[in-house]
Amino acid sequence: MNAEVMAMGMNNELFKEADPMFADNARAYYEYARENDISLTHTLIHPQVNREKAQHEQKDANMALHLVEKKSDGIIVDGVRLLATQGGITDEILVFPSTVKPAGELDDPYSLAFVVPNNTEGLSFISRESFDQNKSTYDHPLSSRFEEGDAIVHFDNVFVPWEKVFVCGNSSICNRTFKETNAVVHMSHQVVAKNVIKTEFLLGTVLNIMDSIGIDGFQHVKDKGTEIMLTLETMKSHLYRSEQNATLDRSGTMTPDFEALNAARNYYPRVYPRLVEILRILGASGLMGIPSEADFQSPEIGMIVNRALQSKNLQGYERVQLFRLAWDMTLSAFGSRQMHYEYYFFGDPIKMGMAYFDQYDKEPYKQYVQDFLQQTTAVKPNFS
Amino acid sequence: MNAEVMAMGMNNELFKEADPMFADNARAYYEYARENDISLTHTLIHPQVNREKAQHEQKDANMALHLVEKKSDGIIVDGVRLLATQGGITDEILVFPSTVKPAGELDDPYSLAFVVPNNTEGLSFISRESFDQNKSTYDHPLSSRFEEGDAIVHFDNVFVPWEKVFVCGNSSICNRTFKETNAVVHMSHQVVAKNVIKTEFLLGTVLNIMDSIGIDGFQHVKDKGTEIMLTLETMKSHLYRSEQNATLDRSGTMTPDFEALNAARNYYPRVYPRLVEILRILGASGLMGIPSEADFQSPEIGMIVNRALQSKNLQGYERVQLFRLAWDMTLSAFGSRQMHYEYYFFGDPIKMGMAYFDQYDKEPYKQYVQDFLQQTTAVKPNFS
Amino acid sequence: MNAEVMAMGMNNELFKEADPMFADNARAYYEYARENDISLTHTLIHPQVNREKAQHEQKDANMALHLVEKKSDGIIVDGVRLLATQGGITDEILVFPSTVKPAGELDDPYSLAFVVPNNTEGLSFISRESFDQNKSTYDHPLSSRFEEGDAIVHFDNVFVPWEKVFVCGNSSICNRTFKETNAVVHMSHQVVAKNVIKTEFLLGTVLNIMDSIGIDGFQHVKDKGTEIMLTLETMKSHLYRSEQNATLDRSGTMTPDFEALNAARNYYPRVYPRLVEILRILGASGLMGIPSEADFQSPEIGMIVNRALQSKNLQGYERVQLFRLAWDMTLSAFGSRQMHYEYYFFGDPIKMGMAYFDQYDKEPYKQYVQDFLQQTTAVKPNFS
Amino acid sequence: MNAEVMAMGMNNELFKEADPMFADNARAYYEYARENDISLTHTLIHPQVNREKAQHEQKDANMALHLVEKKSDGIIVDGVRLLATQGGITDEILVFPSTVKPAGELDDPYSLAFVVPNNTEGLSFISRESFDQNKSTYDHPLSSRFEEGDAIVHFDNVFVPWEKVFVCGNSSICNRTFKETNAVVHMSHQVVAKNVIKTEFLLGTVLNIMDSIGIDGFQHVKDKGTEIMLTLETMKSHLYRSEQNATLDRSGTMTPDFEALNAARNYYPRVYPRLVEILRILGASGLMGIPSEADFQSPEIGMIVNRALQSKNLQGYERVQLFRLAWDMTLSAFGSRQMHYEYYFFGDPIKMGMAYFDQYDKEPYKQYVQDFLQQTTAVKPNFS
Repeated sequence: MNAEVMAMGMNNELFKEADPMFADNARAYYEYARENDISLTHTLIHPQVNREKAQHEQKDANMALHLVEKKSDGIIVDGVRLLATQGGITDEILVFPSTVKPAGELDDPYSLAFVVPNNTEGLSFISRESFDQNKSTYDHPLSSRFEEGDAIVHFDNVFVPWEKVFVCGNSSICNRTFKETNAVVHMSHQVVAKNVIKTEFLLGTVLNIMDSIGIDGFQHVKDKGTEIMLTLETMKSHLYRSEQNATLDRSGTMTPDFEALNAARNYYPRVYPRLVEILRILGASGLMGIPSEADFQSPEIGMIVNRALQSKNLQGYERVQLFRLAWDMTLSAFGSRQMHYEYYFFGDPIKMGMAYFDQYDKEPYKQYVQDFLQQTTAVKPNFS
Repeated sequence: MNAEVMAMGMNNELFKEADPMFADNARAYYEYARENDISLTHTLIHPQVNREKAQHEQKDANMALHLVEKKSDGIIVDGVRLLATQGGITDEILVFPSTVKPAGELDDPYSLAFVVPNNTEGLSFISRESFDQNKSTYDHPLSSRFEEGDAIVHFDNVFVPWEKVFVCGNSSICNRTFKETNAVVHMSHQVVAKNVIKTEFLLGTVLNIMDSIGIDGFQHVKDKGTEIMLTLETMKSHLYRSEQNATLDRSGTMTPDFEALNAARNYYPRVYPRLVEILRILGASGLMGIPSEADFQSPEIGMIVNRALQSKNLQGYERVQLFRLAWDMTLSAFGSRQMHYEYYFFGDPIKMGMAYFDQYDKEPYKQYVQDFLQQTTAVKPNFS
Repeated sequence: MNAEVMAMGMNNELFKEADPMFADNARAYYEYARENDISLTHTLIHPQVNREKAQHEQKDANMALHLVEKKSDGIIVDGVRLLATQGGITDEILVFPSTVKPAGELDDPYSLAFVVPNNTEGLSFISRESFDQNKSTYDHPLSSRFEEGDAIVHFDNVFVPWEKVFVCGNSSICNRTFKETNAVVHMSHQVVAKNVIKTEFLLGTVLNIMDSIGIDGFQHVKDKGTEIMLTLETMKSHLYRSEQNATLDRSGTMTPDFEALNAARNYYPRVYPRLVEILRILGASGLMGIPSEADFQSPEIGMIVNRALQSKNLQGYERVQLFRLAWDMTLSAFGSRQMHYEYYFFGDPIKMGMAYFDQYDKEPYKQYVQDFLQQTTAVKPNFS
Repeated sequence: MNAEVMAMGMNNELFKEADPMFADNARAYYEYARENDISLTHTLIHPQVNREKAQHEQKDANMALHLVEKKSDGIIVDGVRLLATQGGITDEILVFPSTVKPAGELDDPYSLAFVVPNNTEGLSFISRESFDQNKSTYDHPLSSRFEEGDAIVHFDNVFVPWEKVFVCGNSSICNRTFKETNAVVHMSHQVVAKNVIKTEFLLGTVLNIMDSIGIDGFQHVKDKGTEIMLTLETMKSHLYRSEQNATLDRSGTMTPDFEALNAARNYYPRVYPRLVEILRILGASGLMGIPSEADFQSPEIGMIVNRALQSKNLQGYERVQLFRLAWDMTLSAFGSRQMHYEYYFFGDPIKMGMAYFDQYDKEPYKQYVQDFLQQTTAVKPNFS
């Protein structure tokens, strides 16, 4: 179950502003999803048409998902949303406002939050080409097992019963949902925990590669390892602080300290592509000449490639397995999409950085310097 | 025909040091290749086993390609070499010394330069998995057409007739071949010309993407465009200077000015991954939700995706074609391998940077500052 | 004499748009300055008050230099301009429009170009604290000799005779002056030539420091040297291309190729602070423990410091002289201001980057990619 | 009192390896310094002569501080050490081994740890030129108050009584002192706490500048603020984790968690110069045109500069005070030396990075990936 569902269910006062029903819906759905172990994908953003314009200003303004009609038993919605990851393998889909792009009142028709089962009539997922090519776990160790899929979601006049609606045509509530339900806090906590383990896995891969080809004595290689280690320790310290400082929120939900999490979720997309680059650089030509499992099984060339690809401490078969893992983290369609995905996880890092700056409590630091400036022996001249 | 073949053929005095025959061989092969339009792949480096050690120190020292026996009519060579690009689609293969790793005398057995046809007995190419997945030119616009292949080359006691041998077991000559034949100059000229056009193509793709989703008014987007433009202009200026300053070398071959080319070939690998990153960043979610040609042809969803993926100035069908091109330059297995390939084109940029520093004419600049330091009114104290 | 004066004098048609007199003035002043070897400072920008607003929107809009009155024999101007470098040591001052900030019609009163002698009544230069501290050429090798001064220029109802006025209250002409007179080309040529020699001097200093303390064998040290060398070669290639491609402009003035110069002047501010940083990093603790000339002359401690500060190849006295030069290029008030000055030489690099993007000829590259996209076997579906 | 003195006093078993006396000395001195509030400078490194060589290999090997003679009541030491900050304003000086450069046995004579009062006979401090120029707290707000001084320390056959000696001619003990006494932990804790407050002060200065000239709405300006904020939060999280995880060490001393501190002290020098650069960039021309207190007090020009230098929300007098502070943090000799000092605080970041890599506990991460690689369905071929 998504962190958003829990957050909306527990901190649902916001939704009451429009109608008490919406708060009850959020709470009820949370309990339903929790008790029935419902898996959800979510869709957070509008299609990328013209980024200079608000949604209602787009030339084909009805293309994006919007409210068509309110009926006695529910609403009709129509249009397109991006970008449901794991769309095909979950039970339901949550339509949720974006974290990064505040909308004005004219965007009210696009301001929606609701949930529907994936097999709802009129709902379709248009998936990209799969990056799982039916290769073995030796050849494609990650893409053969962890391909997620990304899908464009099309709502063809889909009916959503009222009890599954949380926000209906209200941009003001949408803009505040992520923050005021603490959804952003709980999502961030999940993400930062995931990023710690992801960095550990990447570090382990890099270290094994260093060992295998005997490059761990070079200064610049050590330094690249240190870069990853410092990133890992930074994420660990943020996660630790957020958990040690956790408090009960107004709904009684244990809530991590957002200051550290917010720093972590803004920091990670800025460095993650560099971590992947380090793995790529250290892999070097070992990421180019990568025979497949079938080559090793071949009576004709198996022994040749096993010898040809040997490394300092590994047989060719073992070393290619390691480098294929590195390739599947960096250069395969799966691996490079993963990197891109992390970069844009919470939205455009440029816009996130602006939002981070705006919400930061700046006054104490300004005041600190202003106080210092008062401590001068200079006498202010009288210019009156 | 490779630039190396021309260079070795024209500036072949170096090979005479071992035997005049080798110089004649180089000249004869150049003429043969030129007149018969022979296409060649080449292999420049030893397998990546333990990078801390010289070739003869490796635990399985006979695995790398080495001289086995000199016979009256030729030589027997055995072992493995990396990394023949386009191995399967050329006529012959040139074994050539690496530009970046000087060898000592103990590496003499590995110090070879020769050419053989690709169908020579005992010679085999062990190719990596193909990145051409038989997709259409719409879906995979580059990988469907320009996949090059990378192959490990295995010589199983291959016989090379003397007339195709240019260097035989002589590390000193091998170490000097790239430079003293001007092979490095002519290769650099080809590469820099290629890099100019490659950068132009990448810039064009970026600019079309900016137009398509209306992001070209944002300051940081413009600045990313400017980064690419400045790189392009730098490469153009280097290429221009190298050509305008070209002179006839001692063999009468028109030879570009290496100073500018050497700067260009050291500069480009340092910035090219960033250019690809810019394209990836600007593509954003448009590189994730990419339906295929079949989706657009589908009676059920063709019109939906055409509408859903529309952009500021393009229909969905056109815009996805553009973004699939960007994807195939950045995130597909083909595109990310291209980037990796450019980064390592002439060898490890770290080692190239060290070699560049060493060969640079530093004295005039040192002297310039020492002259300045003399122009002081200070009187040197007498410490005797 | 400034490049702008020549450019305005030769390509003066622009000024005729307001009155033929202005074109004649520009030509006459150019000839006068050339024949009488007049040295000029210039002032290009308005005071930095509120950067979000245009000049006429500022709360104290009359503070910036503006036109007060047109009289029969000249104009009265009043207010403040930034930032006259070398203000105190030139003959005259040129008020000139900024390269980077286009003005609208409401900024007409601020849109001026004229020249006056520095001793004009009502004109004053308010200088910053001097960074020349009367130290010896040993202690402060650069700041003792090359301090330029930066001054705020105050015009207290200054009278400028018509014959020294080139633009008077016309924002349209002001906005176009830099480009249409080719002033920007000739200024860029001077600046890029200066940047080449400045980089050579910095490279020489770095290389002497490497030698002196025996660090030139370390990989990361070599690489830092290579960074400087690649920058130098880039600037040389741009300068070379601009000169080899020079043509006569419409006034018959030999004019370098702006494409290469424009790239160079946008590139250099982006890398120059890094070059200074490299010198600082390599200097390390040698930039902290820097005794003075007087210490070496002292009978008590002269020999001690000469021994204590010795380096691999220099006596302490010589080595400290070298490191003091490096200090005066990086860490002294003079040196760090130099770096800041280069960074902002032509204006804010952020705004320059945006302007560069806008003026770049983008169409050929867009078209190149569009042509490629046409070369697909895919058949465009019919969505009508 | 220095953290090292406490650490050596409490965790002194190491010194017993040579003689129990040394452990007692360390403990006694710690108590003496604590009870008498002794302030100390310290000197950690040898002179920078030829960095490719060990100390005993230097051409003038006796120039560095070394043991001359052991006597019944103490030792005679002679030679030069770097770099005592605040040398002239403390009570005593601690000679202490460097953190970063392990020494071999041949460097035993240079392997010393002891303490002497600053007025000991034969001890002299050779100071660099002062960066306090007797300017007012308005003109030079930091250099007028916080100049620290850096001094070369010369020992002319200085006598050190045995009770002030902790390590005497033992490279093995010297190499381990920082780590095994926990000196590095307590120093790191002090330093990281200082870095937090330093970053807060820098952030406050940047924010006040943004307000004063109205640039805080620009995206790239916000992003630069975000960079500083993320650095601050990283340092805070590391400090928090180190303190929350503090434990009693074997001597009963409360000792922070070194993992987080070690990351913090390696991270900060890598980013601090960038923070200073951000302040410099945002200050822009406001850091060039900086009149002095005297200008504002002047009857002739005081009102002019007060008006000319006004900003969005400040009078000229106030705004120049703020920008002079920024100048004294970035471009003055004091400010740029501060930045250099932070960069090299614990030694060369390059060497620190290598040491960090070496000491990091890498096994769990390697094992994690090796375990994953075992989870394949591929059957290992039999090549025997």
